[in-house]
Amino acid sequence: MDSRTGLPVVGMVGGGQLARMTHQAAIALGQSLHVLAAAPDDGAALVAADVQYGDHTDLAALRTFAKSCDVVTFDHEHVPGEHIRALAADGVKVFPPADALLHAQDKRVMRERLGALGAPNPRWRPVAEPAELVDFGDEVGWPVVLKAARGGYDGRGVWVVDDAPQATELAATLLADGTPLIVEERVALRRELAVQVARSPFGQVAAYPVVETVQRDGICVEVLAPAPDLPEELALAAQQLAIDLATALGVVGLLAVELFQTDAGLVVNELAMRPHNSGHWTIEGARTSQFEQHLRAVLDYPMGDTSLTAPVVVMANVLGGEPGGISIDERLHHLFAAEPGAKVHLYGKQVRPGRKIGHVTVLGDDLDDVRARAARAARWLQEGRG
Amino acid sequence: MDSRTGLPVVGMVGGGQLARMTHQAAIALGQSLHVLAAAPDDGAALVAADVQYGDHTDLAALRTFAKSCDVVTFDHEHVPGEHIRALAADGVKVFPPADALLHAQDKRVMRERLGALGAPNPRWRPVAEPAELVDFGDEVGWPVVLKAARGGYDGRGVWVVDDAPQATELAATLLADGTPLIVEERVALRRELAVQVARSPFGQVAAYPVVETVQRDGICVEVLAPAPDLPEELALAAQQLAIDLATALGVVGLLAVELFQTDAGLVVNELAMRPHNSGHWTIEGARTSQFEQHLRAVLDYPMGDTSLTAPVVVMANVLGGEPGGISIDERLHHLFAAEPGAKVHLYGKQVRPGRKIGHVTVLGDDLDDVRARAARAARWLQEGRG
Repeated sequence: MDSRTGLPVVGMVGGGQLARMTHQAAIALGQSLHVLAAAPDDGAALVAADVQYGDHTDLAALRTFAKSCDVVTFDHEHVPGEHIRALAADGVKVFPPADALLHAQDKRVMRERLGALGAPNPRWRPVAEPAELVDFGDEVGWPVVLKAARGGYDGRGVWVVDDAPQATELAATLLADGTPLIVEERVALRRELAVQVARSPFGQVAAYPVVETVQRDGICVEVLAPAPDLPEELALAAQQLAIDLATALGVVGLLAVELFQTDAGLVVNELAMRPHNSGHWTIEGARTSQFEQHLRAVLDYPMGDTSLTAPVVVMANVLGGEPGGISIDERLHHLFAAEPGAKVHLYGKQVRPGRKIGHVTVLGDDLDDVRARAARAARWLQEGRG
Repeated sequence: MDSRTGLPVVGMVGGGQLARMTHQAAIALGQSLHVLAAAPDDGAALVAADVQYGDHTDLAALRTFAKSCDVVTFDHEHVPGEHIRALAADGVKVFPPADALLHAQDKRVMRERLGALGAPNPRWRPVAEPAELVDFGDEVGWPVVLKAARGGYDGRGVWVVDDAPQATELAATLLADGTPLIVEERVALRRELAVQVARSPFGQVAAYPVVETVQRDGICVEVLAPAPDLPEELALAAQQLAIDLATALGVVGLLAVELFQTDAGLVVNELAMRPHNSGHWTIEGARTSQFEQHLRAVLDYPMGDTSLTAPVVVMANVLGGEPGGISIDERLHHLFAAEPGAKVHLYGKQVRPGRKIGHVTVLGDDLDDVRARAARAARWLQEGRG
């Protein structure tokens, strides 16, 4: 409890853009997010009043940080489960709990649990020997998708493997490095979808509309809300799946379920338990942003209205472009002149090629128009041209 | 320029809720608002990373603060004009400029200038002697409205004077205290309106929809956007008036023009040159919030889209209630359960009876419904009941 305001203190481990945008939401709720950042130039550390520095793998730092907070939550999934359990044993409220978060940290655990719950997995197998990978590929057909069971992120830790010789060599190298592996069939997908829910300790769950996520080189570049032309029964099935998973796994806070839409229905791709890139559109596009919703969930406040604020919402990620050209400040001028309705979110990051440095959101009535405007706005920031 | 981000630094003098909400908007633009606050428990000081402390009447403190900023602007109108001129003479970009801000600081100057511009004043007169007040009342009819030409705020510095004896006594007391006075006729008003515009140094002006402001005891309690049943020609006239005034006065940043709607048309009540309570609805209710728009204006970025995000937007202020009852945190629980779509903004202030501690905004299609929901949401926070 913040004695100055009589309101609870939420602490977030990790000082990236998710913490930065959660701080914005906390301000409206009368709070000030406490942030455990790695460095003073972390996106959230640049803007928040209450910042401590420390490594998220350092239990002593986590314990010191937790002392100033009523609830501790996360900007990423990299805090070791044993540290989360140690904090909980200290009496700290930590959300999501370690037993839930494990399913976003370990793909093998996730696949096993989804299977046990009857949720739609692709065909998959753990890989402890190169031969197991070869057997799997021969069985389901090449290419297959090899994944690091732990530590992958944004396309890292994922390899498309074309044939047995490549499989043997790659698996041997990775296993020798101690990388735990699973392999999945390459799903014949029509497109990728995502659905977010928030769940409170009380057990209330609120689902956002299902969105389409558009990937390029394994990185999400665009989110279309709601997912265009999605049959209502599939949308409801996706929301129900996310609600059921959040409940079964004991998630508290946000759960993002990334899905493949196939001819046969939905397949779960990944889980994330935190505010997620597929939900940035909610800042302006939903009555309650995912960041406010995450705070409400971990504080056990009733969930906010998740409905859309416009018929069509498109979020485009802004990746750092090649060095040179006009400054980011000049780019903003041109973007605002071209698109007075584009909502810009910059994360305070140094520009590096391919690094997510911000996003833009455009709302409207016509998908093609809104999508073109969002792409143009992102292009101004990314490439310095419209 | 912030060397970490390549983006400009805006400094705001004053650490109240306007600076607090401007900081939220700054974060999205990749910035972090620099704040010159009076005390660590100021609303903005609780949440911003870059806070300096000092008095807004202390030129040395202002000069030190300005060194860290590309542009300096204000959360209130109390910075002395000579200090603003001194900063400008130092080469600091200060917006609005002293010559513009004077019209929001001195009601006599404002009335004279409005008269010279042909803008709609009520009948008014400066009061240097009690007899001048009595003569004016006898001439236009009692009661009349006596105002401190400088230093008034939120109903303070305004007195309704009923007759000549009261006028003589009150004016004598105030003049003896050195309070500069003007008197205005009490306008037979239908209701109060407000219109906000933002103007950039380049000269671009963007107008928001005209709103109705509902006052109780001289304090704004509710804002209805757009103003219900306002004939389009009056709405356009109000916007044009605000655009013309912003241009003629050389405003940079936001200008709020508070208006009386009378049977004969519009009359200017007050001017404010900063984000304003009559514009809080824009955070969710307009495509560009007044806080982002103010930043865009003082940075000479192109202005954002000012259009409404819903047919009806109602903002209700939350005033501190009597001490006792359930805590503010419990009140939030009940409010969120009752109104999942209400958007809450708490300013981090200690509760004192009658003090503005936050506001709530509700969006929808039906005025009566939205208004009732906003009032109920505010009542939960204010009185601990729905």
